Amino acid sequence: MKSVLIVMDGLGDRPIDEFKGKTPLEAAKTPNLDKLSASGVNGIMDTIAPGVTPGSDTSHLSLFGLDPEEHYHGRGPLEVLGVGVGLKHGDICLRANVGTVEPDMTIKDRRAGRIDSTAEHCKALDGLKIDGVEIILKPSAWYRAALVLRGKGLSPNVGKNDPKEVGVKVMEVKPLDNSTAAKKTAAVLNKLTKLAYEKFKDLPINKKRTATGKLPGNMLLFRGAGKYVPAPTLEERFGIKAACVAGGGLYKGVARYVGMEVIDVPGATGRYDSDYDAMVKAVKAALDDHDLVFLHFKATDSAGEDGNPQLKKEMIEKMDKAIGGLLSLKDCIIVATADHTTPCSLKHHSYEPVPVVMAAPGVRTDDVIAFGERSCAKGGLHRMRGLDLIHVILAHMGVLKLYGA
Amino acid sequence: MKSVLIVMDGLGDRPIDEFKGKTPLEAAKTPNLDKLSASGVNGIMDTIAPGVTPGSDTSHLSLFGLDPEEHYHGRGPLEVLGVGVGLKHGDICLRANVGTVEPDMTIKDRRAGRIDSTAEHCKALDGLKIDGVEIILKPSAWYRAALVLRGKGLSPNVGKNDPKEVGVKVMEVKPLDNSTAAKKTAAVLNKLTKLAYEKFKDLPINKKRTATGKLPGNMLLFRGAGKYVPAPTLEERFGIKAACVAGGGLYKGVARYVGMEVIDVPGATGRYDSDYDAMVKAVKAALDDHDLVFLHFKATDSAGEDGNPQLKKEMIEKMDKAIGGLLSLKDCIIVATADHTTPCSLKHHSYEPVPVVMAAPGVRTDDVIAFGERSCAKGGLHRMRGLDLIHVILAHMGVLKLYGA
Repeated sequence: MKSVLIVMDGLGDRPIDEFKGKTPLEAAKTPNLDKLSASGVNGIMDTIAPGVTPGSDTSHLSLFGLDPEEHYHGRGPLEVLGVGVGLKHGDICLRANVGTVEPDMTIKDRRAGRIDSTAEHCKALDGLKIDGVEIILKPSAWYRAALVLRGKGLSPNVGKNDPKEVGVKVMEVKPLDNSTAAKKTAAVLNKLTKLAYEKFKDLPINKKRTATGKLPGNMLLFRGAGKYVPAPTLEERFGIKAACVAGGGLYKGVARYVGMEVIDVPGATGRYDSDYDAMVKAVKAALDDHDLVFLHFKATDSAGEDGNPQLKKEMIEKMDKAIGGLLSLKDCIIVATADHTTPCSLKHHSYEPVPVVMAAPGVRTDDVIAFGERSCAKGGLHRMRGLDLIHVILAHMGVLKLYGA
Repeated sequence: MKSVLIVMDGLGDRPIDEFKGKTPLEAAKTPNLDKLSASGVNGIMDTIAPGVTPGSDTSHLSLFGLDPEEHYHGRGPLEVLGVGVGLKHGDICLRANVGTVEPDMTIKDRRAGRIDSTAEHCKALDGLKIDGVEIILKPSAWYRAALVLRGKGLSPNVGKNDPKEVGVKVMEVKPLDNSTAAKKTAAVLNKLTKLAYEKFKDLPINKKRTATGKLPGNMLLFRGAGKYVPAPTLEERFGIKAACVAGGGLYKGVARYVGMEVIDVPGATGRYDSDYDAMVKAVKAALDDHDLVFLHFKATDSAGEDGNPQLKKEMIEKMDKAIGGLLSLKDCIIVATADHTTPCSLKHHSYEPVPVVMAAPGVRTDDVIAFGERSCAKGGLHRMRGLDLIHVILAHMGVLKLYGA
């Protein structure tokens, strides 16, 4: 038996007045998800624990069976893995943007007018050494880049140079403890800030941009330092081969962290325009040589964070339509769930549990016939923890060993 | 958003024949609690864990988010805090009664005929030193007092002098391990037993009592030694200001232990006659400058321990009526629950989960329309742990940080 784990990011919501008290998921027409609910077993799930508002990183670790208390080392390494940078144990990883600053280091735009490539910027700094520490800088989508410090005696316990607002100066990176390693890491990052301005300001791309009235990308802004500590892979833990189909970089990063193969799907953007049919097609293809395929849809979270219930509902319907392409799979477990709740009324993540359905041959069905936050709460899975989900899937696949004898 | 956490002590019960198989809560008319259930999300809760019968002390620690496995150091410190005695880390705390003994130390009455003040007794011993150890003795309600030993090299691992029965002799306090500290503490307490009799027997209050045929309060009986180890406050853990409205000393003590301000409410006795309307009025006033107010009603537990289902039902109806005064609060989470089950048929605490309801703006409602042990079991919160409750409340208030990014 194979399995597909569908995560609809930030799917969970709260009652919405314009939907007469229904959530976007309850208001959406979801014939395919409802078919899964009717033929499967349903429940609600705290991806971390009751009352805990999960980040997208910690919740996915949990869904892949890694306790974030042990295996979460900050967002940096997961973002960097998402870009596809090969990491070594101990690398210090940060998320980076190319932005625009005035000569006095006041930030004018954190994204340099949404500059569409950081390739030249990365080339200008990638491979340089500062105080014996190797700088690795690789382009990601648009104005984004992945920054890695590789060397001895480094610490992730440092601040950032990105104040996350405009009109203020680029920050000095501070060590967050008194260790030599934190001080050294902060010093390297501060030298990198200066070096970035020197190297970036006269890049051909910036001359071109300035000539056409666009903002130059003349500063590297970074945040979210974390140390890369390898985790045991799904293959090492359970003997299974897994693949990931996702648009967003973070999700590819978490997938790589647990040893999934990331399938490149043209059109999978992680944005509202993402080509879900292409993603579902890629999932089906990946099932040929993988035991489990993780399919990640991002748009529900984005619509929640935009505070747009109508758009969230539409995105759910778009996802449902694409998921229809998976219903004919034979001998395959289909699990549909979310990583957390993102209420449109809050525009940010929230703590409430998410619905979960597992449809598979042999599963003990329940009375639930619609996939929703409240309908699934009446299902046979009751209320479960995210950390348990992968074990339930793999146990139903029959790949987990007997505990005891 | 603010919150009120209502704990109806020992509320949970078992089916009662005279109520045709209903519990006292199910049999009681509770229009206001039912309104909360209908507009909120419901569940059942194991305040400690399934199959564990909670004490009032351990269950409240858990409800306030402190794992009793780590933070429970005996009843003594919580009772002493309830009296309002300021404690230092390492203080050895005991519950004390003033009782009546014969000259040969046989106990005649453990409460000295329910003597109505221990002020003179406390004054006679408070501040004295025995073997370099400071004795702190402060009056509590009626025949009760709070006893603290303060000094170096003390241990809570000692017995008691109170056999908790009459007709037997005052006990010698035994060290419960072989440590020097336990031996020293036991020796101090045994000297205190002797000193109490010497100092108490000729107190003016006792002369007066003997003259009017009342039992003299001539002995200090103590039990429940525990060491005071400060716990992180709710403000330190979550950045919130909390207040407590309660009659019973223990509940004020646990509240102080977690850093709540204890509001003094005249008429809040912790007994059947407690003025619940005054308590609810105090809760409303406290919400002006506190984020969370804990409201504790004791009478349900007392009626359960008295084995009186009719009285328990009446007390539930009295609580429900008072709670009605909270239903008009805007932007406020109302949580109603219990600390444990106290079946009238058993007359003591029991292990069964308790009902819990959380009514608040934005909450995902369920189909439950009555607040009861069995009706709430069908609600959207499912079955939860006491330790998670405060996180769920604070998450809904929006004061908890994102876990991850």
